[in-house]
Amino acid sequence: MKNYFVAKSRRIRSTPYTSRIEKQGASAYTVYNHMLLPAAFGSLEDSYHHLKKHVQIWDVAAERQVEISGKDSAKLVQLMTCRDLSKSKIGRCYYCPIIDDKAGLINDPVILKLDNQRWWISIADSDVILFAKGLAIGNKFDVKIFEPNVDILAVQGPKSFQLMEKIFGRKIVEMKFFGFDYFEFGGAKHLIAKSGWSKQGGYEIYVEHTESGLALYDKFFELGNELNVKPGCPNLIERIESALLSYGNDMDNNDNPLECGLDKYVNLDTDINFLGKEKLKEIKKKGVTRKLMGVKIETKEINITKSIKILDEKNNEIGELRSGAYSPHFDKVIGIAMLHKPYWNNSQTFKIELNGKRFDGKVCDLPFI
Amino acid sequence: MKNYFVAKSRRIRSTPYTSRIEKQGASAYTVYNHMLLPAAFGSLEDSYHHLKKHVQIWDVAAERQVEISGKDSAKLVQLMTCRDLSKSKIGRCYYCPIIDDKAGLINDPVILKLDNQRWWISIADSDVILFAKGLAIGNKFDVKIFEPNVDILAVQGPKSFQLMEKIFGRKIVEMKFFGFDYFEFGGAKHLIAKSGWSKQGGYEIYVEHTESGLALYDKFFELGNELNVKPGCPNLIERIESALLSYGNDMDNNDNPLECGLDKYVNLDTDINFLGKEKLKEIKKKGVTRKLMGVKIETKEINITKSIKILDEKNNEIGELRSGAYSPHFDKVIGIAMLHKPYWNNSQTFKIELNGKRFDGKVCDLPFI
Repeated sequence: MKNYFVAKSRRIRSTPYTSRIEKQGASAYTVYNHMLLPAAFGSLEDSYHHLKKHVQIWDVAAERQVEISGKDSAKLVQLMTCRDLSKSKIGRCYYCPIIDDKAGLINDPVILKLDNQRWWISIADSDVILFAKGLAIGNKFDVKIFEPNVDILAVQGPKSFQLMEKIFGRKIVEMKFFGFDYFEFGGAKHLIAKSGWSKQGGYEIYVEHTESGLALYDKFFELGNELNVKPGCPNLIERIESALLSYGNDMDNNDNPLECGLDKYVNLDTDINFLGKEKLKEIKKKGVTRKLMGVKIETKEINITKSIKILDEKNNEIGELRSGAYSPHFDKVIGIAMLHKPYWNNSQTFKIELNGKRFDGKVCDLPFI
Repeated sequence: MKNYFVAKSRRIRSTPYTSRIEKQGASAYTVYNHMLLPAAFGSLEDSYHHLKKHVQIWDVAAERQVEISGKDSAKLVQLMTCRDLSKSKIGRCYYCPIIDDKAGLINDPVILKLDNQRWWISIADSDVILFAKGLAIGNKFDVKIFEPNVDILAVQGPKSFQLMEKIFGRKIVEMKFFGFDYFEFGGAKHLIAKSGWSKQGGYEIYVEHTESGLALYDKFFELGNELNVKPGCPNLIERIESALLSYGNDMDNNDNPLECGLDKYVNLDTDINFLGKEKLKEIKKKGVTRKLMGVKIETKEINITKSIKILDEKNNEIGELRSGAYSPHFDKVIGIAMLHKPYWNNSQTFKIELNGKRFDGKVCDLPFI
């Protein structure tokens, strides 16, 4: 596949870490929330093996925050998600599908409850801030909504705990998954969550104080030498193996959370008020007509730039592949696909055409491992 | 400046024309509305000269549409813009700043009035659809809002009229600027507007019928040989010389339309209802404290990836440069900058540091030419 350059400009925002990652060998970017998100440091496969064994520092500043505060903030945040947040706790992160009144997905952020009247929505790639503003204005809610100056650094990989302990002490290792707390470095306080877009373990540091964040970035590489620390970024192979869904890739506004296997984040049996609730009840009653599933394909190379049709033996379209990568673990291509009813069972075989050649594939459950 | 590759995926959507422009020598992309927007075909300067003399075909499918229809559609569209649309006509395009309740810019689209109860908002790079949905839901408006399947092809340059006449006849040449009408090609009807993101003249074809649009794309190159037709894309040099503002580059949600010289699209003296009206009245009464201006810099090379400070003789920051390019016309770098009061007058000189070197500059009025 031919490569194309990215044309930089102020609109495609740099991050505080951009000059550092470029010196460290970043070679490709994607654009996420109008910001540069590094997409490659050398080979994808080498980076995958390294992530699963050691520790990586990621510039994921593109994971922007929408801060919502004020008297009606809890009401607004709840209005946007089908997950019941009525019992949510300060100091915890919540994975929350955000949907519109037709139950179409708008984003799938992690929501941090900073205080009873203060929330951060840590967003995937869409302007959730505009949805929140529109809803707040239309409903005359008493809230303040803005994008704070937060540039996340992620520390990911099995050795992330050791690396973080060197700097922040034992307390950070003992923190629970999806918990967050404040930790001091270089004279500034940082919100740090035990979270991240890999299943290899790690942290996300919500850097508000840029200078201290940059010093921390450098500190990781100074102290992490013996742990084989490297710069990295969300890894396509690892995130597919771990079935971490990607908004815009695996699902979009044309899909609802029940089609995407997000059932446990859809709370219909409470009296909370959220958009699309009636629609979701209706969908649940009728049953969905398609479903996100895993697939395995008998080939070793794939480059997905758009959906690819999945066909049955008779060439009928039974679904579409939305993400895919060669998995060293399975020694074949694995991917995430939307399958029509009744083809989403985990023994369904299929055909798929990639670069003019046909390959055999098989549907499977998610997660793969 | 080192170049970086763009990592493609389904999330960064391809357009129906992507495979064609890649065969024709596209070498760089930017991402705009979650879609690939070509950013280079060979040298920027060669493309600039060609655009000013001949005719180019642009894949600007990334200029997405937000369709708003229904009983309350006019009310919603007006609510979002400070431009008075009460006398707007079917078959006309309107450049409209979209602002929030704090008068911060959210987008600067061209709005097409398709019918009394049907509008297309042809957007710059932000998810206006989410703002519109939020407002509609909050206000309980009776509207339908969606992104239609429209992939714009632009025909730009002084010879665009000749090329379009070959296909669509005299009527298309006689259409007024910012007018639109429907024209038939290959069995499908296309909405065509006399518009485009250059000042060299031309058209935008709102392709809804993909197959016919692709045939039209090929037809342009078949018939345009004698007119020296080439593939192209919005040209940084030309757009700055022509002072066509770019949302996200020259202005963003932290700026209001009066700071951006968009005064003629701010209609405060009517009884129309739009967001931020009171705030804009207040700003107008007090007077703005900064303003977008042109600048000329005594150098021949620039690459802007973020704002660059503009300093006076005593090193005080008096503004920031947001866009810039070497202009063959002026034989120096020109750019668009936000200047603080009282430094926005057109004889103000300044210093600017680019790649560690200092250069002299001068503020000037927009447009440059």
